[in-house]
Amino acid sequence: MPNGSRPVAQPGHESFDRMWAELAPVGRHPGTGGYRRFAWTSQDATLREWFVGEASRRGLDVVTDRVGNLWAWRGDPDAAAAAGAPGLVLGSHLDSVPDGGAFDGPLGVVSAFAALDHLDAAGFALGRPLGIACFGDEEGARFGVACAGSRLLTGAMTSERGLALTDADGTTMAEAMRAAGHDPSAVGRDDETLRRVGTFIELHVEQGRALGDPGHPAQGPVAVGSSIWPHGRWRFDLAGRADHAGTTKLEDRDDPMLAAAAVIQQARAAAQRFGCVATVGKLRVLPNGVNAIPSLVQTWLDARGADAHAVRNAVSHLASTVGQAAIEESWTDATDFDAPLVGRLSALLGGAPVLATGAGHDAGILASAGVPTGMLFVRNPTGISHSPEEHAETDDCHAGVDALVRVVEALAEEDA
Amino acid sequence: MPNGSRPVAQPGHESFDRMWAELAPVGRHPGTGGYRRFAWTSQDATLREWFVGEASRRGLDVVTDRVGNLWAWRGDPDAAAAAGAPGLVLGSHLDSVPDGGAFDGPLGVVSAFAALDHLDAAGFALGRPLGIACFGDEEGARFGVACAGSRLLTGAMTSERGLALTDADGTTMAEAMRAAGHDPSAVGRDDETLRRVGTFIELHVEQGRALGDPGHPAQGPVAVGSSIWPHGRWRFDLAGRADHAGTTKLEDRDDPMLAAAAVIQQARAAAQRFGCVATVGKLRVLPNGVNAIPSLVQTWLDARGADAHAVRNAVSHLASTVGQAAIEESWTDATDFDAPLVGRLSALLGGAPVLATGAGHDAGILASAGVPTGMLFVRNPTGISHSPEEHAETDDCHAGVDALVRVVEALAEEDA
Repeated sequence: MPNGSRPVAQPGHESFDRMWAELAPVGRHPGTGGYRRFAWTSQDATLREWFVGEASRRGLDVVTDRVGNLWAWRGDPDAAAAAGAPGLVLGSHLDSVPDGGAFDGPLGVVSAFAALDHLDAAGFALGRPLGIACFGDEEGARFGVACAGSRLLTGAMTSERGLALTDADGTTMAEAMRAAGHDPSAVGRDDETLRRVGTFIELHVEQGRALGDPGHPAQGPVAVGSSIWPHGRWRFDLAGRADHAGTTKLEDRDDPMLAAAAVIQQARAAAQRFGCVATVGKLRVLPNGVNAIPSLVQTWLDARGADAHAVRNAVSHLASTVGQAAIEESWTDATDFDAPLVGRLSALLGGAPVLATGAGHDAGILASAGVPTGMLFVRNPTGISHSPEEHAETDDCHAGVDALVRVVEALAEEDA
Repeated sequence: MPNGSRPVAQPGHESFDRMWAELAPVGRHPGTGGYRRFAWTSQDATLREWFVGEASRRGLDVVTDRVGNLWAWRGDPDAAAAAGAPGLVLGSHLDSVPDGGAFDGPLGVVSAFAALDHLDAAGFALGRPLGIACFGDEEGARFGVACAGSRLLTGAMTSERGLALTDADGTTMAEAMRAAGHDPSAVGRDDETLRRVGTFIELHVEQGRALGDPGHPAQGPVAVGSSIWPHGRWRFDLAGRADHAGTTKLEDRDDPMLAAAAVIQQARAAAQRFGCVATVGKLRVLPNGVNAIPSLVQTWLDARGADAHAVRNAVSHLASTVGQAAIEESWTDATDFDAPLVGRLSALLGGAPVLATGAGHDAGILASAGVPTGMLFVRNPTGISHSPEEHAETDDCHAGVDALVRVVEALAEEDA
């Protein structure tokens, strides 16, 4: 059936709407309206149960990998991998940043299930195994490292480092996993799981507003990702001397809050100078009392840009300007998605625009590990993300489902 | 017995050392070594039980006032008040700032019990009722208003305002009180309690280093307080727009962290310009994620100085420089302690030095409410306070006990 005469994927749209409504209340904070869905918490467990339930109602086999990521399979991916034709996997993640939006992550998982529903209703016969993946701890909101699930899966982060990460209460990732019923001793690069993945496609809400900006050349409800900017996280441990705010003379103070203010301001200046973006979004003040000069202000920096050298130069310049050490917590080089796949996806979607992104994704981690990987972005009218105001119109979400349908039809034809 | 030939107050020193050792572990954080003794928590309950136990072993009558402050009485303060000769009260508080030191507060309570032990061992007959007070929530660490117990007691803060204050988890003071077994509906100015207090003397660790500085004219283990600087707390609610740290262009951002940095830097500049002290010791960042531009950064300012106009001018200047509203959370005018009492205390202690202080105290609240009030300060060799490093030498603490003994002997003689 040529694309032009394709009917509306109604069954997929209906199941999308049902699933979207079911997920809406999970982990939503009544005060802020934002989502607090952090790794290995009770909210995370609820989301995992939901995923397993959706897989079961479609007769998919659910496998938890060594790291705790969930995979729902139609067909036998091990047999297909042994035959040299591993599966096609769709998916994303269900966790959130603190007070994040509804779309970042869940849109890709829900759209994947909805696309399968459309294909099933249409009687489409899969030519290769189809998987739907739910990666754990993508945002790094609890333990500080983004894409922890895919990094551990591919070995981009060692299990020693990952399991020893701690949350704000001092709980290690290993302890949190164990409390949630996942065995931390199993964590590590999981070749058995990776072997099953022939192609990975992650659909995600756009986090800039290229598609939503009438002045931008890229237009339409769906775009294809070309690459992920290089990006990293750094921490400044700014130490001072705790003291009484009322009785300590200004000249006797060693107040690290002033150093934190300098880092915040100089980070913006360095980003402007070197043509990248830099953000101080997280602080930890000890003891954080109104009448106490702090003893320590930990200050986190997120920096990204199209050019890796520019990003690294901005961070070095900042560290030297403020005279403080920038402790690198993570660094990810630029990731180009599979070029032939990018071209094919754009053509399949009627010449959909192709965009680079400043956001990290599990798709980037898999691409770096050698998995042929692509991304689809669904239009975000304001570009706002990591916020309760993050949004995509329902029609655009449905267009994303339709796009996934087309992708699966093309990449998983019986004679593919 | 003239002061010069006074023997060492050995029984009081021994009981001081015992009580000090007992309190040392309560609410101490194993990581920081600092104390976390916040109002209406389980640590607070342990401290209150300890106070009641110490009162009981000395046969004192313990009364909880309407607000939840504790009073341990020897003698009948109501009969004395009715006769026009109300009691003499010693005391301080047991709560702490976050990761505070051991001395700020407990030193005054423990020294009061120890002084009574000395007097009892010496067979001293009290000429008027003697009370030992333990004020609740002096530091305001949990609900943000310092001296909450004495402010509510005297009506300096209304019960409506106090009970509605919330902690970081959104729990109101009323809810916290109820959970701890205190009836919030009783809270309000408590004239029955205030009537019993003829004189209040608060002994406290010094929070500057006048006594510990060989170059300062004030020398010796104990000083007498003359006044408390005017001081206040303000909050800046710096609002921005939550957004993704990687995908939002610098020019599209509304990042309140930059406004917070300006408040921090300009607060210091304003304090220097107007000759006072100003401190940003507490921040609250929402959502506080590494890869999220914040939606809100609440920034607290503590400002004090010898001159009230200078302090207010500094805050106004700061607000106007950064273009943000300074929300006043509390303000306390300069408080002079009872001048004849200050002179008498200094003379009683062999001409002890007289000092003003930048720290607020329950003694200041009572003085403002018309209670004849004085303070004693025990030497702090470094001046460091509100920190695990806060310290006073044991000999100086014992000298503080001795000073209280002398004060009670003089102010509670049988023919006083």
